[in-house]
Amino acid sequence: MKKVEDYVRSIPDFPEKGIIFRDITSVIQDPEGLKLAIDGIQNLLKDVDFDVVVGPESRGFIFGVPIAYNNHTGFVPVRKKGKLPCETISEEYALEYGTATIEIHKDAIQPGQKVVIVDDLIATGGTTEAAIHMIERLGGEVVKVVFLMELEGLKGRERLKDYDVDAVIKYPGK
Amino acid sequence: MKKVEDYVRSIPDFPEKGIIFRDITSVIQDPEGLKLAIDGIQNLLKDVDFDVVVGPESRGFIFGVPIAYNNHTGFVPVRKKGKLPCETISEEYALEYGTATIEIHKDAIQPGQKVVIVDDLIATGGTTEAAIHMIERLGGEVVKVVFLMELEGLKGRERLKDYDVDAVIKYPGK
Repeated sequence: MKKVEDYVRSIPDFPEKGIIFRDITSVIQDPEGLKLAIDGIQNLLKDVDFDVVVGPESRGFIFGVPIAYNNHTGFVPVRKKGKLPCETISEEYALEYGTATIEIHKDAIQPGQKVVIVDDLIATGGTTEAAIHMIERLGGEVVKVVFLMELEGLKGRERLKDYDVDAVIKYPGK
Repeated sequence: MKKVEDYVRSIPDFPEKGIIFRDITSVIQDPEGLKLAIDGIQNLLKDVDFDVVVGPESRGFIFGVPIAYNNHTGFVPVRKKGKLPCETISEEYALEYGTATIEIHKDAIQPGQKVVIVDDLIATGGTTEAAIHMIERLGGEVVKVVFLMELEGLKGRERLKDYDVDAVIKYPGK
């Protein structure tokens, strides 16, 4: 029987030499791959009580919305600057070169809500850390952070050490 | 009992004067709103036999992936140029000023597959028409196109008149 990692397409030297890109489109375009990915994330949440799922643009939408639907919670998108139409708060974070800014609607999280963050991949954890800051500024409590894939060599989990972080697939490298 | 349209936030004069922006974040951040939206789309597909769901970046991901998961099909993303890591085909389409280009992975659709396109909104239908062209170039058959919302005044349905098009919420204006 195939496992979800068997559906991940690994592309060597993309986007640059020495990096192995882990492509999730090959997972989700297969009925069984999509089911294994969503059910794998769900399994990591089986003992977690939560009110809302937050997913960063745009692969966090792919994995976060089915989890929200299946658990009868709401889904809150975190988007790149300028994409959300109502009043937002934002957070800047460092990239390899320069910075990026993400936003969340101010009314999207209610104080005291228990929040799960879902995304496709944890690398350095920079985007997730910025998302956590925004959720906490709005009074939400991040009860778990779940990824489909983790690149353990980039030590994102250390950066998020104050939080309950898990991944369905763990790659030892970068 | 609330209907899905009760959860849509209408923002007058955004992004420009005379336009009413229909915001779906207020739908999906509510557990019942999200359920009504997905179930409403599902209801329009109840008599449709299909193999795969295609959703355009990025709000098509929000509504398309739960439909794929619930029907045990795959999900294929259509993305803006340069975002997909493997071999793609692309299609250019007209915007109000200039053009945009979208892409799909070459191996994402198999010849003869029955395809449903899911997206949040049909306005002029330009993106959808470009997506249909790419699906047909790969040998897929577009059996239905379903939107959460339709702006009837922009006549996108006329542009897609050769296809089975439907929407959960129909707004008479633009």
